[in-house]
Amino acid sequence: MENYPQTELDIENAASFLGISAQRMQELMERRVLVPNWNEYQHLFRFEHKALHIDIGSVLVQKNDDFSLILGFPKIKRAMLLGPAIKFNFCDIKRVAVEEKMNGYNVRVILLDGKLAALTRSGHVCPYSSEKANDLLDHSFFTENPQLVVYGEMVGPDNPYVPKEIYGIESLELFVFDIRHKDTGLPLPLYERRELAEKYGFRQVRLFGEFDILEAPSMITDIIREIGRKGHEGVVIKDPKMVLQPMKYTASQSNCSDLQHAMKVYNESGRDFIFSRIVREGFQSVEWNESEEDFRKRCLQLGESILRPMKESIIKVRDGGRVAEEFTIRVKDRATISKFEEYMRRLGMDIVFSEPKTVGNEYLVHMTKVNKSTSDKTLAMWEGQLWS
Amino acid sequence: MENYPQTELDIENAASFLGISAQRMQELMERRVLVPNWNEYQHLFRFEHKALHIDIGSVLVQKNDDFSLILGFPKIKRAMLLGPAIKFNFCDIKRVAVEEKMNGYNVRVILLDGKLAALTRSGHVCPYSSEKANDLLDHSFFTENPQLVVYGEMVGPDNPYVPKEIYGIESLELFVFDIRHKDTGLPLPLYERRELAEKYGFRQVRLFGEFDILEAPSMITDIIREIGRKGHEGVVIKDPKMVLQPMKYTASQSNCSDLQHAMKVYNESGRDFIFSRIVREGFQSVEWNESEEDFRKRCLQLGESILRPMKESIIKVRDGGRVAEEFTIRVKDRATISKFEEYMRRLGMDIVFSEPKTVGNEYLVHMTKVNKSTSDKTLAMWEGQLWS
Repeated sequence: MENYPQTELDIENAASFLGISAQRMQELMERRVLVPNWNEYQHLFRFEHKALHIDIGSVLVQKNDDFSLILGFPKIKRAMLLGPAIKFNFCDIKRVAVEEKMNGYNVRVILLDGKLAALTRSGHVCPYSSEKANDLLDHSFFTENPQLVVYGEMVGPDNPYVPKEIYGIESLELFVFDIRHKDTGLPLPLYERRELAEKYGFRQVRLFGEFDILEAPSMITDIIREIGRKGHEGVVIKDPKMVLQPMKYTASQSNCSDLQHAMKVYNESGRDFIFSRIVREGFQSVEWNESEEDFRKRCLQLGESILRPMKESIIKVRDGGRVAEEFTIRVKDRATISKFEEYMRRLGMDIVFSEPKTVGNEYLVHMTKVNKSTSDKTLAMWEGQLWS
Repeated sequence: MENYPQTELDIENAASFLGISAQRMQELMERRVLVPNWNEYQHLFRFEHKALHIDIGSVLVQKNDDFSLILGFPKIKRAMLLGPAIKFNFCDIKRVAVEEKMNGYNVRVILLDGKLAALTRSGHVCPYSSEKANDLLDHSFFTENPQLVVYGEMVGPDNPYVPKEIYGIESLELFVFDIRHKDTGLPLPLYERRELAEKYGFRQVRLFGEFDILEAPSMITDIIREIGRKGHEGVVIKDPKMVLQPMKYTASQSNCSDLQHAMKVYNESGRDFIFSRIVREGFQSVEWNESEEDFRKRCLQLGESILRPMKESIIKVRDGGRVAEEFTIRVKDRATISKFEEYMRRLGMDIVFSEPKTVGNEYLVHMTKVNKSTSDKTLAMWEGQLWS
């Protein structure tokens, strides 16, 4: 383990940068609203709580006497009924743009001490995502646009958080969906962002097109059906100027796929997570004015998404196994593996890493995360304990 | 509205009865752990929190210098896997008794100032249930057994809490499932209780029989299938001596019926309520070793139980309606209606009562409870608001 110099937050200057008193700044540190990252990232302070109208997951970067603020991912609200939601929320504009919402994990990429760093949703620097970002993104974007932050989705099977085969990606790719200014968090307008990303050769989330808001509901419904058939997730509907708030909408298949995962590890899944997926199905079914036959298909699909993975977990434990999730990561720099292992451990994740396997010029590592809560609860039931 | 004399708790004597210091007693009152009931029941103090190892819903009754304690309903834990649960929990006895678990609401009945009073699960005196108890139960039981409390299920269609047609009951009946001593809460052994109830002509929950614990899982599985076919709820499996803790187990149809109700009023239903019903289906499916065909039937039934009532609520609101629940009560004494109305209002329930209709020598009242949260949320979606 390397030793990194400890960095203290310069309270006076940080306070002045954020426009607050030094005393308030001191308080935020003491109450651990603002928490330093680890190792070589101790000069990055993440907001673990919302404060000063700054969202959770935002990161304050201290560089000598300079500060910058990398704002968190703005929460995108969800349309339950597409037609009414588009009509009501975009009534001030004529046209909306529709981009794909991909199923992966979010990172913000910045240039930091000569290398790219990938910040997760919570504001941690993920060593694995950072190596990938360095590999995937043209650094000159960041030197030429020091005031901009790239917001993107890490997607693909070599994914320690949300592994998905659905996009035909070999390992892991970064798809840009937003570019925003440091400090203010203001987004670039959609076409400006896409042109800029294009110029630097970044991969981007798919743009399905721009639609008049009167035709948008039916066009997007068609897109969602197509997305569902492919097993993809959904769309984000945006004001091309990025002034009005965007909204998201997902395919039934994606809701069901979320439920499948949640019910496999039923005892560690949030009740709200499960509930919200169920509710989406109810609204979509009504808005789509389904036939009785299609409705029954939807019911069967929902029921199977819930019960089949749970059944498999119960059987697995009955037969002496443990419920677990498998992940792989693939790195060029062997040091990233141990950095990532330490990172997972510090986040409190109990994960078993396999020995690295050489594949071409890369190392492949399998990770196994035992879902202890679901395994233990299921075993307790087989041993005859009562539920509660 | 009548005026009732205010009753103060005699702190010294209550403390001595409960075996605690007067100061501790004072504290329990001040912290509103112990809260007096209303009107003529101000000398009944209910436990709104667990304290002194006394369960929530227990009631301390003060009568002149005398005190008695009516203990709450003991929580009956649930078997998820019937076979293992019976084996593990009843391994110290040879035989278990199986009684029906009915779908209604629980009351405890005591004699109070010459009349029967029915205490709900929370320890309130329900005026409607009390009138019914006075009508349905032979008072001599209570004068001849002043130390006993009757625990029963109020079941039937004229039911302001859980109206059910499934038992072929005309109005409302009380089915005894427990008789316990005051102060200690100790239960009578099962057969002693059934004989005593029989002697006074009380209706009782059905006894399916007594089974050797080795044959119990398969016998109870057959009983549960039969209960499910009839749309009834489930069973409680008991140590005939009532020493070991009993356990409950329910039919899939009852879980689904719970879900139907919960999803009709989806925005006011507890996520945990929904989740727990789903989980039961997973375990039962595995324990019953279902064929793929039966499993798909179960999935379809689960999916339909979730989506169909929700779909109906969404459509109802789209068409200008409000999601609401309908209840009826049927009383002999017209004064009970206004007492019950006041009682509902004091509990914070927003219910519209119809004009009483004379039916024979009784009054029938329809009640409508609008599910404001579900109605409002659904309307907001139709107006185009985003979910969150």
